[in-house]
Amino acid sequence: MKKVTVFAPATVANVAVGFDLLGFPLDCVGDTVTVEVTKKARVVEILKIDYDLDGGVELPLDPANNTATVGMMALVKDLALVHGFRVSIKKGIPIGSGMGGSAASSVAALVAANALLERPLTKNELFPYALMGEKLATGSAHPDNVSPCLFGGLTLTRSAAPVETVSIPVPSFIYCVLVHPHLRLDTRESRGVLAPQIDLKAHVRQSANLAGFIAGCYREDPKLIASSLKDVLIEPQRERLIPGFARAQDTALGHGALGCSISGSGPSVFAWTDARATAESVALAMVSAFAGAGVKADSWVSKISAQGARIVPP
Amino acid sequence: MKKVTVFAPATVANVAVGFDLLGFPLDCVGDTVTVEVTKKARVVEILKIDYDLDGGVELPLDPANNTATVGMMALVKDLALVHGFRVSIKKGIPIGSGMGGSAASSVAALVAANALLERPLTKNELFPYALMGEKLATGSAHPDNVSPCLFGGLTLTRSAAPVETVSIPVPSFIYCVLVHPHLRLDTRESRGVLAPQIDLKAHVRQSANLAGFIAGCYREDPKLIASSLKDVLIEPQRERLIPGFARAQDTALGHGALGCSISGSGPSVFAWTDARATAESVALAMVSAFAGAGVKADSWVSKISAQGARIVPP
Repeated sequence: MKKVTVFAPATVANVAVGFDLLGFPLDCVGDTVTVEVTKKARVVEILKIDYDLDGGVELPLDPANNTATVGMMALVKDLALVHGFRVSIKKGIPIGSGMGGSAASSVAALVAANALLERPLTKNELFPYALMGEKLATGSAHPDNVSPCLFGGLTLTRSAAPVETVSIPVPSFIYCVLVHPHLRLDTRESRGVLAPQIDLKAHVRQSANLAGFIAGCYREDPKLIASSLKDVLIEPQRERLIPGFARAQDTALGHGALGCSISGSGPSVFAWTDARATAESVALAMVSAFAGAGVKADSWVSKISAQGARIVPP
Repeated sequence: MKKVTVFAPATVANVAVGFDLLGFPLDCVGDTVTVEVTKKARVVEILKIDYDLDGGVELPLDPANNTATVGMMALVKDLALVHGFRVSIKKGIPIGSGMGGSAASSVAALVAANALLERPLTKNELFPYALMGEKLATGSAHPDNVSPCLFGGLTLTRSAAPVETVSIPVPSFIYCVLVHPHLRLDTRESRGVLAPQIDLKAHVRQSANLAGFIAGCYREDPKLIASSLKDVLIEPQRERLIPGFARAQDTALGHGALGCSISGSGPSVFAWTDARATAESVALAMVSAFAGAGVKADSWVSKISAQGARIVPP
């Protein structure tokens, strides 16, 4: 039986200044999906789902209702395959954490299935199928987790349809801290708090930060990154959903982080630092800030991974 | 008698994707200001104003009401100078054209006066004085003409107070077309048509273009610049103020321009191309498109000047 296993990384979307546009992968946490070829033409089955972290939440085994497989179901139909796929999922990413878990499962499953095709598709061709998982998970096909998960690196999705992504260079001194407070936040709810309109003045301020952040990455300028990596638009609307956020952000900046904001739609929080030692101390301080607000939290320190989803050698 | 003459270039602000943030200077058109030291402590006088182009509009000779001198008046007070300045202005930039004329006069006058000081200020220190001219001219101290006029190059104003500007590299193949239709548009009126709120979705689309444009400049990627250099936010609200705009834009893109939008608050229109020959043909086509709408127009073809305001050798 032919089978392939793929690891797809957790991703931080929005990145403070690029709502629905920017995202980057971590290198130390992700979902792992194994896909086997079966004889049942165009049938997708889920064999099992394992959970690294016991969050008390279980994902549906029905392939039409699981983000990992809904895109694959469309793929087997579109390609009129004479075989099917059986999928085993190992969730390393906590569910509802704002760490891009639905994108990771979806991308991992598709990259694995693709490796089993006689004529594999390009990543750009896989992209719309991966977005179907996001649509199922959150009600909107936002691309900012899928793009970095599939392509790797800090990724700007300039256009989702047709897909046009741009890889933004990340200075080699950057280390990311990701803290996951043990709260579950539904992406639909977190999107629901956002006002459909914003002030033109807020647009200008956020745009200044976005442009400064992109330029700061190209110039490898930690000072410019620090002055730019600020969300004046989305974070003020969402922070009240995350008890302890303000305290964790303050302490991150106080311990030398270049910037700190909500990862995706939360509740996870990320920070960028310009050295590993700073990242380690920021991570400890943030976890203890959440503890002070009565919230348990896990943390990771990671480079921004240049790699997206990748095949795991058997 | 000590005197200094400074040329300050016309500038294109907004640049389609960076409302109130981005601007760049042309190298072929600008205002020229001569400043002489006088014995009258802290007194600023305007000797004369010459007009290269007869637009039938005259600027005030009262220094408190002229954008070229209002910042200088604050400067002589703040520095408690024991002398004064006499100012002669040569307007090469048509008035009310959206080509940054008020910024150019203001910057030219300040750079000239500064060269006559015993202890000259830095450009960053001159910046707030130059903004006073913009405030007088338009009612708001928007920095997107002043920054490129003072510093040169494609300039992002990340913050106006305190001033933080970032020079974005422009690919060497870029040629700019600037077309000035003979309409006069008051900046206050042009700002007045803008809705104070925008859709979050429009913000996301415009941000995608801004980030793509900045990345495209760093990557020297004409395709990315072309897909990104589009204003989905401000241009749709302002284009009706400029008869012939839609036709001129269509023809520019049809003749191979990478992008085309309103210069500043209009009515001038700029286009970027990836070759001088293309720029020449785009310029002709745009002038003829405006003619088709019954509007006379002048045009310039220029590199993006890396230089801002500069002293003219005597």
